[in-house]
Amino acid sequence: MQKSVTKICGILTSGGDAPGLNAAIRGVCRTAIDIYGMKVIGFEHGYRGLIENKSRVLNPSEFSGILAQGGTILGTSREKPFKDKNWCEGTGPCAVEMIIDTYKKNKLDCLVTLGGNGTNTTASLLAKEGLNVIGLPKTIDNDIVETDITFGFHTALTVATDAIDRLHSTASSHNRVMVIEVMGHKAGWLSLYSGVAGGGDVVLLPEIPYDIESIARHLENRGRAGKTFSIVVVAEGARSVEESRLDKKAFKKAREQMSGSIGYRVAREIQDATGLESRVTVLGYLQRGGTPVAFDRVLASQFGTAAANMLAEGNYGKMVALQDNRLVGVPLENVANRIKSVPVDHRMIETARDVGTCLGD
Amino acid sequence: MQKSVTKICGILTSGGDAPGLNAAIRGVCRTAIDIYGMKVIGFEHGYRGLIENKSRVLNPSEFSGILAQGGTILGTSREKPFKDKNWCEGTGPCAVEMIIDTYKKNKLDCLVTLGGNGTNTTASLLAKEGLNVIGLPKTIDNDIVETDITFGFHTALTVATDAIDRLHSTASSHNRVMVIEVMGHKAGWLSLYSGVAGGGDVVLLPEIPYDIESIARHLENRGRAGKTFSIVVVAEGARSVEESRLDKKAFKKAREQMSGSIGYRVAREIQDATGLESRVTVLGYLQRGGTPVAFDRVLASQFGTAAANMLAEGNYGKMVALQDNRLVGVPLENVANRIKSVPVDHRMIETARDVGTCLGD
Amino acid sequence: MQKSVTKICGILTSGGDAPGLNAAIRGVCRTAIDIYGMKVIGFEHGYRGLIENKSRVLNPSEFSGILAQGGTILGTSREKPFKDKNWCEGTGPCAVEMIIDTYKKNKLDCLVTLGGNGTNTTASLLAKEGLNVIGLPKTIDNDIVETDITFGFHTALTVATDAIDRLHSTASSHNRVMVIEVMGHKAGWLSLYSGVAGGGDVVLLPEIPYDIESIARHLENRGRAGKTFSIVVVAEGARSVEESRLDKKAFKKAREQMSGSIGYRVAREIQDATGLESRVTVLGYLQRGGTPVAFDRVLASQFGTAAANMLAEGNYGKMVALQDNRLVGVPLENVANRIKSVPVDHRMIETARDVGTCLGD
Amino acid sequence: MQKSVTKICGILTSGGDAPGLNAAIRGVCRTAIDIYGMKVIGFEHGYRGLIENKSRVLNPSEFSGILAQGGTILGTSREKPFKDKNWCEGTGPCAVEMIIDTYKKNKLDCLVTLGGNGTNTTASLLAKEGLNVIGLPKTIDNDIVETDITFGFHTALTVATDAIDRLHSTASSHNRVMVIEVMGHKAGWLSLYSGVAGGGDVVLLPEIPYDIESIARHLENRGRAGKTFSIVVVAEGARSVEESRLDKKAFKKAREQMSGSIGYRVAREIQDATGLESRVTVLGYLQRGGTPVAFDRVLASQFGTAAANMLAEGNYGKMVALQDNRLVGVPLENVANRIKSVPVDHRMIETARDVGTCLGD
Repeated sequence: MQKSVTKICGILTSGGDAPGLNAAIRGVCRTAIDIYGMKVIGFEHGYRGLIENKSRVLNPSEFSGILAQGGTILGTSREKPFKDKNWCEGTGPCAVEMIIDTYKKNKLDCLVTLGGNGTNTTASLLAKEGLNVIGLPKTIDNDIVETDITFGFHTALTVATDAIDRLHSTASSHNRVMVIEVMGHKAGWLSLYSGVAGGGDVVLLPEIPYDIESIARHLENRGRAGKTFSIVVVAEGARSVEESRLDKKAFKKAREQMSGSIGYRVAREIQDATGLESRVTVLGYLQRGGTPVAFDRVLASQFGTAAANMLAEGNYGKMVALQDNRLVGVPLENVANRIKSVPVDHRMIETARDVGTCLGD
Repeated sequence: MQKSVTKICGILTSGGDAPGLNAAIRGVCRTAIDIYGMKVIGFEHGYRGLIENKSRVLNPSEFSGILAQGGTILGTSREKPFKDKNWCEGTGPCAVEMIIDTYKKNKLDCLVTLGGNGTNTTASLLAKEGLNVIGLPKTIDNDIVETDITFGFHTALTVATDAIDRLHSTASSHNRVMVIEVMGHKAGWLSLYSGVAGGGDVVLLPEIPYDIESIARHLENRGRAGKTFSIVVVAEGARSVEESRLDKKAFKKAREQMSGSIGYRVAREIQDATGLESRVTVLGYLQRGGTPVAFDRVLASQFGTAAANMLAEGNYGKMVALQDNRLVGVPLENVANRIKSVPVDHRMIETARDVGTCLGD
Repeated sequence: MQKSVTKICGILTSGGDAPGLNAAIRGVCRTAIDIYGMKVIGFEHGYRGLIENKSRVLNPSEFSGILAQGGTILGTSREKPFKDKNWCEGTGPCAVEMIIDTYKKNKLDCLVTLGGNGTNTTASLLAKEGLNVIGLPKTIDNDIVETDITFGFHTALTVATDAIDRLHSTASSHNRVMVIEVMGHKAGWLSLYSGVAGGGDVVLLPEIPYDIESIARHLENRGRAGKTFSIVVVAEGARSVEESRLDKKAFKKAREQMSGSIGYRVAREIQDATGLESRVTVLGYLQRGGTPVAFDRVLASQFGTAAANMLAEGNYGKMVALQDNRLVGVPLENVANRIKSVPVDHRMIETARDVGTCLGD
Repeated sequence: MQKSVTKICGILTSGGDAPGLNAAIRGVCRTAIDIYGMKVIGFEHGYRGLIENKSRVLNPSEFSGILAQGGTILGTSREKPFKDKNWCEGTGPCAVEMIIDTYKKNKLDCLVTLGGNGTNTTASLLAKEGLNVIGLPKTIDNDIVETDITFGFHTALTVATDAIDRLHSTASSHNRVMVIEVMGHKAGWLSLYSGVAGGGDVVLLPEIPYDIESIARHLENRGRAGKTFSIVVVAEGARSVEESRLDKKAFKKAREQMSGSIGYRVAREIQDATGLESRVTVLGYLQRGGTPVAFDRVLASQFGTAAANMLAEGNYGKMVALQDNRLVGVPLENVANRIKSVPVDHRMIETARDVGTCLGD
């Protein structure tokens, strides 16, 4: 006898891909289907799948064996259905109306969204539209508020640290400054952690504007102490003291005129200030691809199963979070439109300084 | 002008080696020497170096470039100076007296010990003897109380998960049950986390006595669902329901009579109960060797620098610990002679069950 | 309009699994189907699938994305249809008759077998029965004659070398002899290559009987030179000088009475002869699982595509081989029932001795 | 009693660093010193160390434990002492005179140079000046003539393939074309091998000028077959059909005007021709750093020990090479000023086409 379905749940992944998405999908599905008897419908390519009603029912054969796979079996996109503020004033149905329509057509009781800050912001707005949404915190940037950690971050940290390890041998063989640019437009978690893990001599993050003179002094002191090479880790969002004084618009303009990415600029500035030969590596997409490290699989499994438990309880409108080692649900509206920066008194900042790292200030 | 030395600090690593020891030594030394102007003396091969006064002053050239190295530049041993309860009743100086003598001869102001439960227990006893000791929680087993995590664990987790990943392909190609035995005599953190990360179908830990009938049923259900192979993760300290009823002495005796390690026994029991072809891999020393993963380098660096800060403050008699994302010092006597088991209601136990893992009960 | 099928080709994988099998299957299928318009039928679990006529047509969706996957999508078994010498004298159809029957029923024009020495021997016998067979040399042991290299070997070499790297840190931290047992019952390629790659101090292979006194002397000399630890790499098939004088039957009996595997015995012998603390790691199944390294994917792709080209030419009864950088076909009967041992004057033997490795003699 | 020194041998590493240099240095030293009783002097930073007479005697403590280390303990530079054709017509001693002077001052009997094409060309010229030189073929590009393989190549291949593997998950999750630029200015070995190993859909190498229309057609065909993403591997030296018709000077000029590197241009061209969203990763320095893979350690050890054997024999003026599995010495003058391109009928070209890869033509 076929068991009756207890709830129908939609699921989607949105924003940049991150290692652990599939582990989280598996965690949601296993718990929702096998433990609670729900039906799970996967929407394809993020919110676009909801808008266009493109989906498939997720059966065990689909989420078996995906735990260790990178990417997402559902596909993703950067579609933001609320991006136009007056989204429903035009003619014809707008994106959000189409989403609500899809939700109803599929008789969804609830929806799980896996994504970063943009995804959670949209999820929060959909919750306000009356949808039963639960968010999962995914991003390699670790910049989502209200949770101690996001899945994807540890894998990116591992990739970045491996890369720094590799650069060490070239740096030391050639007596060079090797600059490596890692992800992190708005928050410096990845540059800070990989910088400490990789033994970076200089680590620049968006939260601490850098002074090229300080950096030059630090590198020259290293030279005087007999160190013939240096590693400089730069977050995409690193900025100089001068830039930090610009308003948002002026900063954006300054960046548009910059030749190459910030890593190249820092290398040029170092070379100009010290005369040291400097080379650049931009790590790029390698940081978000590939099989998730063990910890991300564990974390994503925890978040996924916790989400399914919250679905079963009807505990909607929340994002699953890890706070002081406890899995909790935090209101999506508390997460929306916010960024978790690195506090300048964070213990890792102190650790970095204690082991002798120059943070640019 | 030579700066005067503010304090003289001893340091040693004791017990089984674990990835991150060198990162922690570097963290202590960089902070103690460069920030606080201390002198650091490294004692060789754990407490044995203290007993025999074998040491060397640690200069920057020694701890430069060791961040990513496995093992310990100081060497280690399993020497336990207090192991004989009546240790000072015999003739001649005993081990502890010799340690105190070494401490005085070297004019030590303080001592940092890096190790697991045995090391911390000794450290606590030395503190009672009047030495200024600070402990650092190192173990791949993650079984030290009062801290959320120990360094070494994440690397062991990564090695174990990689191994499980490798066994998957052989298991699926041959329609076999692959049993993998991982470390963990008294606590099941490693088998539980690697089991979830690797997608183990059965995961056995010391805290949950196993019933071979439950396991057999689970494997047979998998077969009926079309799964032609299974992965079984077994902690060294796993025990059956029957064994869990034995007293300590009887259990020890039973184990001495066991042919091969527990992994082999579980494989035989599965084969007998189900007829499924079962093969064993004992992971062994691979779990404690090699370069530490990024997270262990970060964690060990944090612990090392925090220890040096406590040395500077004179905040002795403590073990550095991570509690709810804060670095704190906990009294060594609270740590001594205790083991942190996996609570049976731990969120990871729940996660494991939710994704369909059989825990043997 | 549907193109007419040019040939119908069977394919199977047999013997222990090895990394690269899927890459080779993909190479055969892509070339046979897309370039030559053949139909490819995959038989499941080696020769058993031929005996029992269990198969499926391989369509692009099956061999897309398998290049980097370990194991084999076809499954494997150690089934040897000719193992009973008088295999057709009994009553009822025997295994080989059933194979021929399957071959005819499926209207096969040819058959590709991927496997090691056992597989090639069977393939040779089937060729004598009139089947159009082409063999591919797969084995982590690299012990197939007439080819310079087999796929699977480089991945096993990488896994074994990584393991030796890990053991180094424990060995050096504890002043121990670490013994690691790697695969290779009949040939020592893997122990020799991983021993040189990992910097093993003693490397034992089946081809060079070992004298424990020589080993002890070498380890003691290391101690006198200030080296406080050693790594000993032992092939499964390593044997002592005394054992090498036994006939096959006596040797087999001696081994059955041995407690534990050869790695354990060598460790005991070293400990007895030198007093050095010795520990053992048996690498086991980890050597054959997991994603193939880049070189094995390249090699398996080359072998697979070459096999398909030979199918198209009707160049049957051959095993694809790499000889002096050329892909050639060698008669299967030249390969059957033979083992490629390491010649004692091989250049790698010389290299090992030159870098100071003790080979046990 | 001190043994008398049989020969005094200089050694240096020159050009870009490559994994395996330290393994080769160790191979030379172990054999030369321990087997033949030579003295080995290491010159620092390539030919610059010879010009400036900067060196140190290499003792066992220096080359112990370096087998698995990336980079080179001797440092390297791109110094080319013969770069000025009329190098001795000016006033004062020129670079080559200084080298000869250093050679005499240190009473060198011979010199081992480890490097790529530039290094070997210089070595050949020094041999003509009367120095006893032996070259070792090091380069990640694998583009040295007269040898089947160079050390460094397999590690670069592994790094590039790992990167392609990582990009696969992002490509598939976002329905994108991911372009990855790998090293290889003059020869396409690395792009060809990593492209086949990573399952690249399009692989561009300098030897085969590409036609963007062919590439576009191939990618569109993939789309029609339901493949929603593609991987494009581009060698630094890839060029279009149009560019291949330019003379050297015009080509150089065209490249100087190109915005970004070739990977970016190919991505733009693909996006323009197909409308597919295309993203770029430039792998850069990651390809030459880090621990050498097992095979490179083996190969470098073989080359190093062979070099020492040739030193002992007085077999000078040669480069050590691997030809059809034999270690041989080839005259340096046969190697100088030449590049080993990928022959367009190479078996790997055929393999690539057989598995369905578009090579741009």
